[in-house]
Amino acid sequence: MRGYAEWMSKLVDALTKLPGIGKKSAERIVFHLLKTNREEVANLSQILLAVKENVSFCKTCHNFSDSELCHICTDAGRDKGLVCVVEDPKDVISVEKTGVFAGVYHVLLGSLSALEGIGPDEIQIAGLLRRVKEQKVREVILATNPNTEGETTALYLSRVLKPLGLKVTRIARGIPVGSHIEYTDQATLSRSLDGRLPI
Amino acid sequence: MRGYAEWMSKLVDALTKLPGIGKKSAERIVFHLLKTNREEVANLSQILLAVKENVSFCKTCHNFSDSELCHICTDAGRDKGLVCVVEDPKDVISVEKTGVFAGVYHVLLGSLSALEGIGPDEIQIAGLLRRVKEQKVREVILATNPNTEGETTALYLSRVLKPLGLKVTRIARGIPVGSHIEYTDQATLSRSLDGRLPI
Repeated sequence: MRGYAEWMSKLVDALTKLPGIGKKSAERIVFHLLKTNREEVANLSQILLAVKENVSFCKTCHNFSDSELCHICTDAGRDKGLVCVVEDPKDVISVEKTGVFAGVYHVLLGSLSALEGIGPDEIQIAGLLRRVKEQKVREVILATNPNTEGETTALYLSRVLKPLGLKVTRIARGIPVGSHIEYTDQATLSRSLDGRLPI
Repeated sequence: MRGYAEWMSKLVDALTKLPGIGKKSAERIVFHLLKTNREEVANLSQILLAVKENVSFCKTCHNFSDSELCHICTDAGRDKGLVCVVEDPKDVISVEKTGVFAGVYHVLLGSLSALEGIGPDEIQIAGLLRRVKEQKVREVILATNPNTEGETTALYLSRVLKPLGLKVTRIARGIPVGSHIEYTDQATLSRSLDGRLPI
């Protein structure tokens, strides 16, 4: 790259492969690293590799984990009878951050998509059914995304889960907290009316 | 951190120490790293450490370099008689990117600042004077920043360099290319009028 020494080119190249990091941000990071202490850089370098080496999927819920079972599945304080089904490990973090969910998760690692040819066998549905049958699951909360693929997946799951005699729920779709009815799209507002609750 | 496994906390912590990376960006990077191939992560981890281990300052110009002399100082194609003085290694990259400068650099690694108590001995001025005396330097271009510290530094340098009998120039300050006179601040516009050139 113009203006770069070879070592700088290499590091900028490697950094710009990361999401959200352009050339300018990469340059700033390089200069920060050059000015910071050696330990901080060694630490970052080491953790990067360690995470890549050790982190894989939890055998039970398919969340990312650095051991056979993830920190949520092995937490004795979590309610194993309540399973929240999400599409992606990122969604686990989002739900965890709310701090209101005390159950466990099941990560599908995708969603049903006719367009992309992703059927029930391509995502982690079999494992969910096994869990529900083998463990005492009282309720499954379907927390897939409120888009075409997510709704399709939720519908499919509700159909295969309900016959197993447990409670199946879907997270509420409605107007986001802090937003305005005036600016809410029609689909969301319709859902919000349909999903009204007594106060 | 709430919602994170321990390994994730550690990596997010290490990433958010980098400039321009907040928690959300760090999360995105972690998920990218988990999904990308092992080689890319190993490569990044390795380069980070290698750069920190090997990159120091060029003995001649004080630019960052992974060898005793930087890639610009060792380039036989560069005009050693023309020295561009900048405050920071970042500025070298900026000038290099223009592609119009064929001389060499001298990085001061700072600027004179009465407020912060930074005098001529705290920045790399002695080395510049030595270079000018020992090598056949025809012209020194003062490319310090057009702010109080940069202007002070340029003024000081011009005073100590001129008696050595070489040409000392200052980069032009004026309205940026592509901007509007209407929106240009008074100081810049004044400079731009003072620095007018025949066309």
